[in-house]
Amino acid sequence: MKHSVPDCPFCSGDGGHAVYRDARCRVVLTDEPFPGFCRVIWDEHATEFTDLTVADRQHCIEVIAATETTLRTLLTPDKVNLASLGNITPHLHWHVIPRFADDSHFPQSVWGARQRPGAARMLPPRFAESLEAHLVKALSTPPAPAERKIS
Amino acid sequence: MKHSVPDCPFCSGDGGHAVYRDARCRVVLTDEPFPGFCRVIWDEHATEFTDLTVADRQHCIEVIAATETTLRTLLTPDKVNLASLGNITPHLHWHVIPRFADDSHFPQSVWGARQRPGAARMLPPRFAESLEAHLVKALSTPPAPAERKIS
Repeated sequence: MKHSVPDCPFCSGDGGHAVYRDARCRVVLTDEPFPGFCRVIWDEHATEFTDLTVADRQHCIEVIAATETTLRTLLTPDKVNLASLGNITPHLHWHVIPRFADDSHFPQSVWGARQRPGAARMLPPRFAESLEAHLVKALSTPPAPAERKIS
Repeated sequence: MKHSVPDCPFCSGDGGHAVYRDARCRVVLTDEPFPGFCRVIWDEHATEFTDLTVADRQHCIEVIAATETTLRTLLTPDKVNLASLGNITPHLHWHVIPRFADDSHFPQSVWGARQRPGAARMLPPRFAESLEAHLVKALSTPPAPAERKIS
């Protein structure tokens, strides 16, 4: 049974629309006002990234990378922002945020000062399904040589 | 010769007080108004984390983890914030930020709204030297089994 903490929203719920799950983490599409804003949430309640083992960190980062790659493919953002903050919800989660030069906050962070009303931007049709298909494909391919176990 | 971009501050300069260097990246201590605020800066001019190979991503993340671990050891922050934004300076760099419940912005991000004047907090004596010693030691130890090359 996984370590969980009472009243932690990421222990008691998915934290968004889950588009990928494996034995250690999940990727969710959020309803934040930045279209395509995803989070990679570690299932176990860990606080800091360095509370994970090296192997778990590497797995986590490859799920983040697959999410970033998928968002770049599907949305061609001007930049992707990655962040693990957790000051308010100290359960390890990574924000993966496609940014556009005409979004409401660019070039400031999404936590910074609003710069403009922000362009209306709709996600492509069936975006969650596309995200899921890309992630499953990317994360089920054989690992690169450096990741292979010694056999 | 490494790919560099004219007028990029992280191609033309260290971007802070360098406390660790290897063949791929450097760790710098910054003068941001959050004591101990470090950056891991990739030497080559890459824009997105996924512009790196898997092996380079894993190396980068282990340098970030060593920096986080060192800052936890030396400063015992209430939280560590990690972020790769690059909206203003699109040369891959990671912020590694020790956060304290009484700092000027907590629990908001350092890019968010100031919450209070913020407690005066001095770094321990010879902090940069301690940081350097810890990083060199952490990053020169043999890699964990999962990272070893097949021989």
